[in-house]
Amino acid sequence: MAELENVLKLLLEAVEAVQKTPVPVPVPNGIGVGISNRHIHISQDDLNALFGEGYQLTPLKELSQPGQFACKEVVTICGPKGAIEKIRVLGPVRSKTQVEILAGDSFKLGVKAAARMSGDLQGTPGITIIGPKGSVQTKEGLIVAQRHIHMHPVNAEQYGVRDGQLVSIKLDGVRGGIFHNVAIRVSKDSALEFHLDTEEANAMSITSSSTVEITKQ
Amino acid sequence: MAELENVLKLLLEAVEAVQKTPVPVPVPNGIGVGISNRHIHISQDDLNALFGEGYQLTPLKELSQPGQFACKEVVTICGPKGAIEKIRVLGPVRSKTQVEILAGDSFKLGVKAAARMSGDLQGTPGITIIGPKGSVQTKEGLIVAQRHIHMHPVNAEQYGVRDGQLVSIKLDGVRGGIFHNVAIRVSKDSALEFHLDTEEANAMSITSSSTVEITKQ
Repeated sequence: MAELENVLKLLLEAVEAVQKTPVPVPVPNGIGVGISNRHIHISQDDLNALFGEGYQLTPLKELSQPGQFACKEVVTICGPKGAIEKIRVLGPVRSKTQVEILAGDSFKLGVKAAARMSGDLQGTPGITIIGPKGSVQTKEGLIVAQRHIHMHPVNAEQYGVRDGQLVSIKLDGVRGGIFHNVAIRVSKDSALEFHLDTEEANAMSITSSSTVEITKQ
Repeated sequence: MAELENVLKLLLEAVEAVQKTPVPVPVPNGIGVGISNRHIHISQDDLNALFGEGYQLTPLKELSQPGQFACKEVVTICGPKGAIEKIRVLGPVRSKTQVEILAGDSFKLGVKAAARMSGDLQGTPGITIIGPKGSVQTKEGLIVAQRHIHMHPVNAEQYGVRDGQLVSIKLDGVRGGIFHNVAIRVSKDSALEFHLDTEEANAMSITSSSTVEITKQ
């Protein structure tokens, strides 16, 4: 009986593992779009300093990427020239704090942030972050997000692209054009989506209901 | 003697006419860039209503296009969802009031403005404008500026383009890409310059010291 139980347990685990794997989206007519405003990914250490020891994030809304969520919590960021309030915290917590601003925010803050891929923080400037229970001065992690496309390995195969590859995105309309250097990010936990920020979306008249197509560059 | 005076007068007028003609800029390595934030061109009637009868604009700073200037005066614009303060008035006064906003401002105001060429106002939405002495509700004239290149006829000949033609602008760098539908505007009073707004500039990492090149589309 104990052996049967073990077999059942293993079977159950296998079924659960399959269920947890996101089903890859088949290649649609166009790739959906996720438009980001300025936001912050935060480490537990910095969360403790800003919101109090052992603080837990409060999920507000699920995001399109599996497991990611917008939180109730917001912070203020501050540079030598000015502050920007109501920067939304995105969860879950990460190993390193990363603040993603709009290119135009660099002027307001007085800190020049370069376009970087998420996680590629070496040599980026730091910023002062202010929460309800304290503030932190980060040494690095202030970036403008480089536009990118999240996808599952199955999608990558369908499109004939690989993780890290740079592609282009072509857009029609009066404000149409081409975005170069759109990075492909392949992961088993990813849903197919083109990510860009509000300034980029506005410059090309892209809305959250737009779809885009990959052009190899 | 009267005849000699007439000849001299005609000669003087001819010399003055030549002096008034801006000297066309030779084709440089790249075309300079003018980045616009939200602003308003105003009619004398609306100026009277907003600032008082017979009001005259106060020039603050010359702009790169001959005869154009930024003014000391600012106004507030207001839509059903919100207001935006400190909209800079540009002079001189025009026959029609035209409010140029950023695409992102449409959400804040609750009024959807389309990308239009300056002066092409038919069918565009109106907006409430508030000044220190009164307010006006315009019937039309709220636009997002379509990106364009001002140039002298000599430049147009050098580039092999004509007034109204749509060209593309190619930009390098991590945030590089191509802007389609960049309208050529040819006038004897124009200095060579690519005009776009702050969201477009930020999306492609363009600054006021950038130069761009025309690509035919």
